[in-house]
Amino acid sequence: MAHGEPLPWDGFQREVDETLRSVAAGEVASGGVDAAWREALLSPGKRVRPILMLLVAGMFSVPRRRVLPLAVIVEMVHAASLVLDDLPCMDDADTRRGRPSLHKTHGEAVATLASFELLSRAHARLPAACAVARLPRRRWAALGDELAHVVEQLCRGQALDLAGTAEAVDELERVHAQKTGSLFVLSARWGALAGRPSSVELDAVEDYARNLGLAFQVMDDVLDCVGDAGRLGKPVGQDASRATFVDLLGLDGARRLADELTATAVHCLAPFGRRGAELETLAREVVSRVR
Amino acid sequence: MAHGEPLPWDGFQREVDETLRSVAAGEVASGGVDAAWREALLSPGKRVRPILMLLVAGMFSVPRRRVLPLAVIVEMVHAASLVLDDLPCMDDADTRRGRPSLHKTHGEAVATLASFELLSRAHARLPAACAVARLPRRRWAALGDELAHVVEQLCRGQALDLAGTAEAVDELERVHAQKTGSLFVLSARWGALAGRPSSVELDAVEDYARNLGLAFQVMDDVLDCVGDAGRLGKPVGQDASRATFVDLLGLDGARRLADELTATAVHCLAPFGRRGAELETLAREVVSRVR
Repeated sequence: MAHGEPLPWDGFQREVDETLRSVAAGEVASGGVDAAWREALLSPGKRVRPILMLLVAGMFSVPRRRVLPLAVIVEMVHAASLVLDDLPCMDDADTRRGRPSLHKTHGEAVATLASFELLSRAHARLPAACAVARLPRRRWAALGDELAHVVEQLCRGQALDLAGTAEAVDELERVHAQKTGSLFVLSARWGALAGRPSSVELDAVEDYARNLGLAFQVMDDVLDCVGDAGRLGKPVGQDASRATFVDLLGLDGARRLADELTATAVHCLAPFGRRGAELETLAREVVSRVR
Repeated sequence: MAHGEPLPWDGFQREVDETLRSVAAGEVASGGVDAAWREALLSPGKRVRPILMLLVAGMFSVPRRRVLPLAVIVEMVHAASLVLDDLPCMDDADTRRGRPSLHKTHGEAVATLASFELLSRAHARLPAACAVARLPRRRWAALGDELAHVVEQLCRGQALDLAGTAEAVDELERVHAQKTGSLFVLSARWGALAGRPSSVELDAVEDYARNLGLAFQVMDDVLDCVGDAGRLGKPVGQDASRATFVDLLGLDGARRLADELTATAVHCLAPFGRRGAELETLAREVVSRVR
């Protein structure tokens, strides 16, 4: 999907945004870390990871309200990682989601601290979120480990991406499997866990999410190349110093790769039959908006 | 105590260091985030917060091995916060604990990511650490909230310190109650919780730790003014742009304040009688080394 354009699950997005606002509720002085992490969390996003989790949960007939707290945790970690990505020492991006990036409005120090605090708050919300999702108590610690493992992958993927040493498509895929794919997989996994999946079903949604996340990243590169800044919400061409899928494959080649990844994602949904229809739509949305 | 000089609990420090090494065990490629967070965690420190926790636990007759995993979590969060403090956008410190600071050896991006990962790993270790400490399961989530609350205070205190707006001693005390005191209080609190304290006892060790943390910070300012860099392990006078206790009170005034805080800390130990002897020694060590 084009960044900035809503997914066709407006209601879901509204529910996620409402929950995020409740997380950020409370009076805060302007200018400090308290205001900054709230600004990072509430900046307008498509909430694709929470929506993915809600859709997967729905496929297992789990009511959305039971996974919303877990979905919020994923979005908090995502928001925290975006703040770091934009820092001058990383992508040095002046805008994000159509607004000045957090270090532009709050300074680098406060933005960095806000990201740190968001991550900590995300972790602390896990036990309560597991309870709402009715996950057995013996699994709660494992979910904390899974979250920390994804943070490790986000950090490793970001460092590799910045190093820009990937010279072949499979190397770049490995970078983005960590940087983007890992949080997609976690979102799908947690949505499924709330529905007591079989191991075949769990593997299937994780494979789906892995391919979806990669397709999402490839289209991000395509958009970064062809999009205009207003639509994208961030500076066009800012990834110029990094290897992108467009660099390695050209525009058409990158689009073809996104198509292939989408087809693979959809294929992973086979075990679910008609129950996978909404996830199929989600996968097709990822690549349809920039034709 | 002077920074760089060991506390008179060498055995405790060795146990903490051993546990930290086990946390950092595993083969890792050099240069990346994996190597960086390990370097931050294993850089030689006095481990004053873990030692405080072990001493408090000991006062409640809790074996050290039962709180070592909790002590490690506190040190991980402390190490993560030091990496951020040293960044060019914060204190811009080239050295830490007598070595180049992490962004000097790994670059700003990797250092920032390493701090982020350390924090996440610290949170994820909490359930297992609570189990080893034999804390009742219903309390585990509360400890996660306490950790997140301390991270909030660390961030807020650091932002206030950087803003440098404190003009009176009580304002500066409020800054450092958050930036330094909060993790001291948490260390003492968790050490006590493992020993099933009465509420009077819990309040007493927290009050003790609050005063100890502040005395520690005041002596840090004194050392920053009079110390030499080799002994201190970080550049002398690097806090010049911030308001320090020495700025507001002069050298002698700051030393007197540290003495008062130490006396107050010791006074808080009254409910424990002779059982508080080691904590009394710890408090006196904080101010004795720079006479």
